[in-house]
Amino acid sequence: MAILCKPAVAVPEHVITVEQTLYLAREMHAEHPQLSLALRLIANTGVRKRHLVQPIEETLRHRGFRWRNEVYEAEAKARVPAVAHAALTNAGLDASEIDLIIYVSCTGFMMPSLTAWMINNLGFRQDTRQMPIAQLGCAAGGMAINRAHDFCMAYPKGNVLIVACEFCSLCYQPTDIGVGTLLSNGLFGDAVAAAVVRGQGGEGIHLRRNGSHLVPDTEDWIAYSVRETGFHFLLDKRVPTTMEPLAPALLSLARSHGWDASRLDFYIVHAGGPRILDDLCRFLRVEPEAFRHSRATLTEYGNIASAVVFDALRRLFENGGAHHDAQGLIAGFGPGITAEIALGTWSVGDAAIPAAAPAEEANALSLL
Amino acid sequence: MAILCKPAVAVPEHVITVEQTLYLAREMHAEHPQLSLALRLIANTGVRKRHLVQPIEETLRHRGFRWRNEVYEAEAKARVPAVAHAALTNAGLDASEIDLIIYVSCTGFMMPSLTAWMINNLGFRQDTRQMPIAQLGCAAGGMAINRAHDFCMAYPKGNVLIVACEFCSLCYQPTDIGVGTLLSNGLFGDAVAAAVVRGQGGEGIHLRRNGSHLVPDTEDWIAYSVRETGFHFLLDKRVPTTMEPLAPALLSLARSHGWDASRLDFYIVHAGGPRILDDLCRFLRVEPEAFRHSRATLTEYGNIASAVVFDALRRLFENGGAHHDAQGLIAGFGPGITAEIALGTWSVGDAAIPAAAPAEEANALSLL
Repeated sequence: MAILCKPAVAVPEHVITVEQTLYLAREMHAEHPQLSLALRLIANTGVRKRHLVQPIEETLRHRGFRWRNEVYEAEAKARVPAVAHAALTNAGLDASEIDLIIYVSCTGFMMPSLTAWMINNLGFRQDTRQMPIAQLGCAAGGMAINRAHDFCMAYPKGNVLIVACEFCSLCYQPTDIGVGTLLSNGLFGDAVAAAVVRGQGGEGIHLRRNGSHLVPDTEDWIAYSVRETGFHFLLDKRVPTTMEPLAPALLSLARSHGWDASRLDFYIVHAGGPRILDDLCRFLRVEPEAFRHSRATLTEYGNIASAVVFDALRRLFENGGAHHDAQGLIAGFGPGITAEIALGTWSVGDAAIPAAAPAEEANALSLL
Repeated sequence: MAILCKPAVAVPEHVITVEQTLYLAREMHAEHPQLSLALRLIANTGVRKRHLVQPIEETLRHRGFRWRNEVYEAEAKARVPAVAHAALTNAGLDASEIDLIIYVSCTGFMMPSLTAWMINNLGFRQDTRQMPIAQLGCAAGGMAINRAHDFCMAYPKGNVLIVACEFCSLCYQPTDIGVGTLLSNGLFGDAVAAAVVRGQGGEGIHLRRNGSHLVPDTEDWIAYSVRETGFHFLLDKRVPTTMEPLAPALLSLARSHGWDASRLDFYIVHAGGPRILDDLCRFLRVEPEAFRHSRATLTEYGNIASAVVFDALRRLFENGGAHHDAQGLIAGFGPGITAEIALGTWSVGDAAIPAAAPAEEANALSLL
């Protein structure tokens, strides 16, 4: 039994409001032929503010890819420990009880990844397994939950720490001025999130089933162009339309578990942008209220990439969670275009949960 | 039961011999104060030739990080399909029967990773899970085997395709002229490897247990410096000494399974360099002959990073494998410094294997 415990999230201290974003866009791109469209798109994101690892003046300065990666590393080392520690505390575990660290981040690149530094400096065991993921973008949050779930199916006494460290502002590219990029510049924010998946015990989402889905022939819709100047984020204007082909994958996975994805008790979905949330509501036939936690993340922090699902889940926890055995869905969306989908039930902890019958566990294991 | 089937490996058509490497080193670094040391180190690697994705003249030309990543992508798309197909054929499976693709590569960076392209173009299902790994370097081959093993423990009917695509020559940095770099320039080669781990059926290594081990405070010993010019490989001269702290981890994992790592029937270890192999022999107290397949890979292809373990394993298969239930060890070593270790027994296939008793499976699952 794998339980996704309450996430911890921290956003940096430098804040930029939507008003400041719009002002900057007007100042910097006064001559841009599609400025008014870009401004309208930014205003329509619903993002009220975002948090950045550096002041905005510094964020807008591109000092080179090497420098940015050095900032990434320094900021990750400064900000990850407290969040990881808080997630462990939320789960009632010590670092030495973690068997696998899944570290997801697409906004900086290190080899070895931060997992090695964490093991050396934060009290994890030398035999902690490391799974660094850099190439799944915003879908990596859902992917991390799903691989943690799989790990606890393989090792029912195992515990997994997930860390999502996204400093999207370090991917700002001043020379990219397409409308999609201007929109991205007003949409993405920085955050560090962490959560523990416990193989035994814990309170939170009892992970029941997971799945992945790739929308055919959309590899170029969300992509990095890797250049001397770093990662250049390419966002195709067709991305917001992807909920139409993805909603059936969500419905289908739920159906294979005997659930109706249109009638679940809670939803934690990636808040890529407002259209993603609106469309998914429509295609899943659920009320907008169902996505209130994802929308709150978008409004207060912007799109914080793989960290979104953890922040939305934190909000669900802080809003009282759900009743025991309430059915819910978690979905991350990102490059591929890939959806990583998890189904789970709310679990109020050991005391209230009957011990899983061995037969039931065996069934769960034999299902693909 | 997870079976690691016979790998497929392909090396590119452009060959550079050790004589050519030494000649080039002499020509290009005639004034280098440590040239003779560098030449001696290169000669001592035991590498006779290496295979490169481009002719040597082109390899030595640095046309920029963007250009290199574009070459990486084009070469990966050109070379991976046949190798993936051959690995599937070796395993007796069709692409549509694969549930997870683990794609490991540290010598180029794509987002989305090649997994999305493979699903779109090579007949994999849309719900194939994707695990792209870029930050574990040479240890990623062992890591891929271990995560595939875990996946089949979670989903006993699951099948995993592993692809290791390493074009080390695309990381050549003409401005790096430290002795460690000159040695690396004469050591690393290019290759694509693939292998399937089947949850049911198949012939090969029955994966029994896996583990990871990080050598404390060695993060800087094998690392990338990520710069405008791409990945700069940093190799500390202390790396060859790491077998002393790593051998006990191998012995300990084997002991926890009731095995003696000094008395196994076969060994498939990462051929980082000759000293790695020599030292590991010494600290494990095994004969050099035990590492003959790893040494053959090093001699014929150089250090092909995460692909080494698959090529050494291919050689074991092609040399007749081992007797049924022969005990063996697979170990990948890479940045961290991390070892990824697997224990397995040789399995000659369904016909010869008694069906696993349910009780035994349950025990295996409860072990950490």
